[in-house]
Amino acid sequence: MVLVSPRNPLNIGAAARAMANFGFRRLSVVAPFDPTWREARSAVGAPALLVNAAESATLAEAVADCTLVVGTGTLTRRKPEQPVVPLPELAPLVSRELAHAGRVALVFGPEKHGLTREDLSYCHLLVEIPTDPLQPSMNLGQAVAVCLYELTRCAVSVPESTPATPVPSVTSVASSGRLDLLAGVIEEAMRAAGYSPRAMQPANRHDLRLLLRRLSLTAHDTRRILGLFRRILWRLNHLEH
Amino acid sequence: MVLVSPRNPLNIGAAARAMANFGFRRLSVVAPFDPTWREARSAVGAPALLVNAAESATLAEAVADCTLVVGTGTLTRRKPEQPVVPLPELAPLVSRELAHAGRVALVFGPEKHGLTREDLSYCHLLVEIPTDPLQPSMNLGQAVAVCLYELTRCAVSVPESTPATPVPSVTSVASSGRLDLLAGVIEEAMRAAGYSPRAMQPANRHDLRLLLRRLSLTAHDTRRILGLFRRILWRLNHLEH
Repeated sequence: MVLVSPRNPLNIGAAARAMANFGFRRLSVVAPFDPTWREARSAVGAPALLVNAAESATLAEAVADCTLVVGTGTLTRRKPEQPVVPLPELAPLVSRELAHAGRVALVFGPEKHGLTREDLSYCHLLVEIPTDPLQPSMNLGQAVAVCLYELTRCAVSVPESTPATPVPSVTSVASSGRLDLLAGVIEEAMRAAGYSPRAMQPANRHDLRLLLRRLSLTAHDTRRILGLFRRILWRLNHLEH
Repeated sequence: MVLVSPRNPLNIGAAARAMANFGFRRLSVVAPFDPTWREARSAVGAPALLVNAAESATLAEAVADCTLVVGTGTLTRRKPEQPVVPLPELAPLVSRELAHAGRVALVFGPEKHGLTREDLSYCHLLVEIPTDPLQPSMNLGQAVAVCLYELTRCAVSVPESTPATPVPSVTSVASSGRLDLLAGVIEEAMRAAGYSPRAMQPANRHDLRLLLRRLSLTAHDTRRILGLFRRILWRLNHLEH
C-alpha cells in the first residue's frame, strides 16, 4: 500500500492499523511531511509495518517494482483517463495479477486533494468506493480500511514474502519501473527525432505514460520495444554527429 | 446506528462521516460522555445526522423500536451467547428484516472494551469483521466504515423515512422494547411465584433477555404471551392477598 504525502499523523496511524487488521504488510510512504511522519512512526502502539515502512521521494520510485498500480479517490472533480473499477469488482483483478507473480500497489493520495493528475498517470486503473453523491469524500483511514476489507473479503491472499527479484518470463507483466525506463528512452527518441515542439513535451510525456500502462505490456514486450527504441535513438544521435 | 458510550470525539465524527458517505441517516448515542459529545457535535463540518443524533441513557431505550439488533466487536475475549455472523453474510439478514417492515440497529461499543455482556444481551446476533488474529481489534471509525460499506455493497437500501408507528401485523417481528416489556412481566411473575432465589435474579434476567431474542417472536406472539403472563401475575398477586 502506498500513501502519497499524508498530512495527518492520526490518518497515517489509522491506515497502518487497518493494514495490520487485514493482514497487509508492505507500506510505502511517498514524500512525507517530515514532522507528521516522525510523529506517526513514533506513536505509542504503532504497528511494526509502520515503523518499517519504506520511504521514497516520488510515486514512480515507490511503485517501480509493481505490475498493477491502482489509484484511489473521489472522481467527482475530474474525468479520469484510465478505466475506473467500482471497489466490489477490484478483487478478481488483483487476484489475477498476483496469480501471475505480479505485484500490486494500492495508492492513496493526500487527505485534502487526493492524487494529482501526475500521480494518476502512474496508475493502470482507478478504483472507486461507491459512496453517497451528497457526501462522496471519505476520511483517509476509513477509505483504506474499506478497500483492504474488500480485498480480504474476496480472499485475495497476500503472499507472506515476495521474492526480491521475480523471475522474468514471457507472460509476466512489465513493472512500473520498466515502463518508466521505456518511456524515458521513447521520449529521448522523440526529442532526437524532433517529434514534438518543446512546449508539447510535458503533455506528450503524460500521454505516453498513460498509453504504456493501457497496453498491458509483458516484460518480454517491454524488452523488445526498449531494444528497438534504443537502436533508433542510437541511429538518430549517430546521424546528428 | 447506535454508538454506546464513545469516548473520542474524533471517532464519533468519523463514524458520522462514514454514515454520510454510505447514505445512512439515523444515529443514536447511548450514555455519551458529555464533554466528548458536545465537542463532536459542534466540530466544524459535522454532518447533519450527527447534529440531529438521538441521545438515550440506555441501550434498551435506544433500540426499543428495533426488531433486529446487531452487536459488533472483537470476540476473542468471550464466548458469545448469540449467533455470530461474519460481516460478508450480514446483508441478506438485514435486507430480509427491512423487507418485513422491521427496523435494524447496528450497535458499536466504546473504543477500549467494546460492548459489555449486559449490552450484548439486547442483541439478536453478533457480527464479526474477519480480521487478522494477530491484530483483530479495529479502530471504531474504521469498523463503522467497513460495516456500512458492506451493507451498501450488497445494496441494502435504507428507507428514506420510516413511519413513526409501524403498522402491527401478525407476521411483524416484536420490537426490542416490546420484548423488554414482556421480560419485565415474566420476571415479575417469576418473583411472585417464588421461582428463583434473590441471588439468582440478575442471572435469570440476563438469560431471559437472551432467550426472548433467540425465539424470534412476532409482535402477535409477544402480545399473546404478554397477556398470559399478565393473567398469571394477576392470579399470583390475588392469591397472596
